[in-house]
Amino acid sequence: MERRDFLTTAGIGAAASVLAAPAIAQSAPQIKWRCTSSFPKSLDTIFATSEAVAKRVAEMTDNKFQIQMFAANEIVPGLAAADAVSNKTVEMAHTATYYYVGKDPAFAIPCCIPFGLNARQQNAWLYEGGGGELANEFFKKYNFIGFPCGNTGAQMGGWFRKEIKSVADLQNLKFRIAGIAGQISAKLGVVPQQTAGGEIYPALEKGTIDGAEWVGPYDDEKLGFSKIAPYYYYPAWWEGGPTLHMLVNLESWAELPASYKAAIQAATAEGNQMMLAKYDRLNPQALKRLVAAGTRLLPFPDDVMEASFKAAEEVYADLSAKNADFKKMYEALKEFRGEEVLWFQFAEGFFDRFMFQLQRRKAI
Amino acid sequence: MERRDFLTTAGIGAAASVLAAPAIAQSAPQIKWRCTSSFPKSLDTIFATSEAVAKRVAEMTDNKFQIQMFAANEIVPGLAAADAVSNKTVEMAHTATYYYVGKDPAFAIPCCIPFGLNARQQNAWLYEGGGGELANEFFKKYNFIGFPCGNTGAQMGGWFRKEIKSVADLQNLKFRIAGIAGQISAKLGVVPQQTAGGEIYPALEKGTIDGAEWVGPYDDEKLGFSKIAPYYYYPAWWEGGPTLHMLVNLESWAELPASYKAAIQAATAEGNQMMLAKYDRLNPQALKRLVAAGTRLLPFPDDVMEASFKAAEEVYADLSAKNADFKKMYEALKEFRGEEVLWFQFAEGFFDRFMFQLQRRKAI
Repeated sequence: MERRDFLTTAGIGAAASVLAAPAIAQSAPQIKWRCTSSFPKSLDTIFATSEAVAKRVAEMTDNKFQIQMFAANEIVPGLAAADAVSNKTVEMAHTATYYYVGKDPAFAIPCCIPFGLNARQQNAWLYEGGGGELANEFFKKYNFIGFPCGNTGAQMGGWFRKEIKSVADLQNLKFRIAGIAGQISAKLGVVPQQTAGGEIYPALEKGTIDGAEWVGPYDDEKLGFSKIAPYYYYPAWWEGGPTLHMLVNLESWAELPASYKAAIQAATAEGNQMMLAKYDRLNPQALKRLVAAGTRLLPFPDDVMEASFKAAEEVYADLSAKNADFKKMYEALKEFRGEEVLWFQFAEGFFDRFMFQLQRRKAI
Repeated sequence: MERRDFLTTAGIGAAASVLAAPAIAQSAPQIKWRCTSSFPKSLDTIFATSEAVAKRVAEMTDNKFQIQMFAANEIVPGLAAADAVSNKTVEMAHTATYYYVGKDPAFAIPCCIPFGLNARQQNAWLYEGGGGELANEFFKKYNFIGFPCGNTGAQMGGWFRKEIKSVADLQNLKFRIAGIAGQISAKLGVVPQQTAGGEIYPALEKGTIDGAEWVGPYDDEKLGFSKIAPYYYYPAWWEGGPTLHMLVNLESWAELPASYKAAIQAATAEGNQMMLAKYDRLNPQALKRLVAAGTRLLPFPDDVMEASFKAAEEVYADLSAKNADFKKMYEALKEFRGEEVLWFQFAEGFFDRFMFQLQRRKAI
């Protein structure tokens, strides 16, 4: 059917089909893929990015390569997206690889780790600094290849019912936080909670949990946390610049003609940049609305930041000792981070800081 | 010839060509474009980005849409790139639109203006915040459309033979700086110099000029300024995140099939992100080499930053009063900047600042 569809589209008469089919079918076959997202449509910035990638691929291939997007739970649950690509239930998934730290903690690194890189530095590492190659070497074990596709920028540290004045206030605090960040928080006395997006609000309202991190102002505002947990902390030291990925099953990837592979590479790179631009546009407006409505915006206290960093270092030492894949990627990321953080404090950091000063005294 | 080439490539026999040609030729014609760069090949990070865009477009179209890159002066001089697109000498140009402030100061805004946006904020404005639409409305007067395609990040403030301790040290200082930044500097007593890249070193060496700004550590190191001007200042307050563009002649653009238009949009977006990632990888290494070799890295004094900002505001008021296009884009950018700078000082700025602190005390 596929070859026949293509031939009809291309307007080639039946007499030519035997001769024409093989070469054409090879260079521009009709292909339909399914892509499962780890995210609900309500995270519209994220879901719109995956839809834009699918649309762009279709446009570039004259609708011959079609990728149909499915929200979380339409085919498989959000956290089963990587498995669905591994076993070829779907050809593609839009996900955050740190969701899979239960399979292997190394999955966190291509997405982000606490006190890791910011969004721009993570791009530099993944695209130009060898990080993408290391990630794909690791992903190969799971039968997929990954393409960076979306970043939120540094996230907010979350919503709390009570003020956090020091590390002491974290003792026995039931905080919705997952993965490696949860492990690190536990070392500070936090009791990490695994709570699905839709269950956070009622849990916070009832006091089943004391606080919850989600994304940033734009997404957080929609869930209404400000009404029941007035203290909004920054930053999410665990998410300085999380990178989402499009994961593609390796056999499906191998079957693509070169032009379709190139289309996926360009469209995902475009999507990667687009999602960050969307958040950067939407977050300030949401933040202003939240603060106007009474949200108290506060930085985590210094001792919380310092103790979290110390705990993170302990967790990384422990993970590196036990897991060669984690160690290899972590060491590479750490070396890259040293260079980036050194450089960013000069031209980049000074420029930003000066603009912040102007803004605070209302000169801009 | 073009149609015939395509048919041969596609492996369609002569008997089918009459029937097959129209539909195929329309959807995937053989097209060859020339793209002139404003940059020499020696600016390898920038030139490689334009070559990567051309390569990606070719890959995505099975080599049917070929864009041949030409360095500055191969077809027209670097600063004639926009004219060459306007009058269709070439179909496309890779350039920095602020080179054309002599034609119209509004050309600066889609690239960058002093005390404007950083790279990420400029992306957010151009792609999602309406800036791209405003830019293209303006570019239309010159018969081209533009696509963001490359960013250096915040640049360095340049190399000086003597230390700059205050605004007083700027009096009669012959500093290589162009465009609106030159106008602003002149208000502080600087005598702005227009010096082509290859002439900066001898002019600095002879003392014909006292200082020069170029790009950042990676590009600056290659020109060897450190040997003759040991003081290296940051930041270029005039280039917080300059965006290069691919300009495309409007008639050439209109002739493209939708799939090729999409290919250019995706490939330039990919290039935009790639160039920044390349600089972010290369700059730290070059900076370390420069400092190890004796370069003195210094921030511009506070009074220089403040006086420059004040002078910039005067220049913008003046330009806005005289030029409706400038005013329209500047007002939009200013409003956007207010929101971005507000937001970036919370999660993003705090995360970066904490990492800087860790780096300075060698904890990372």
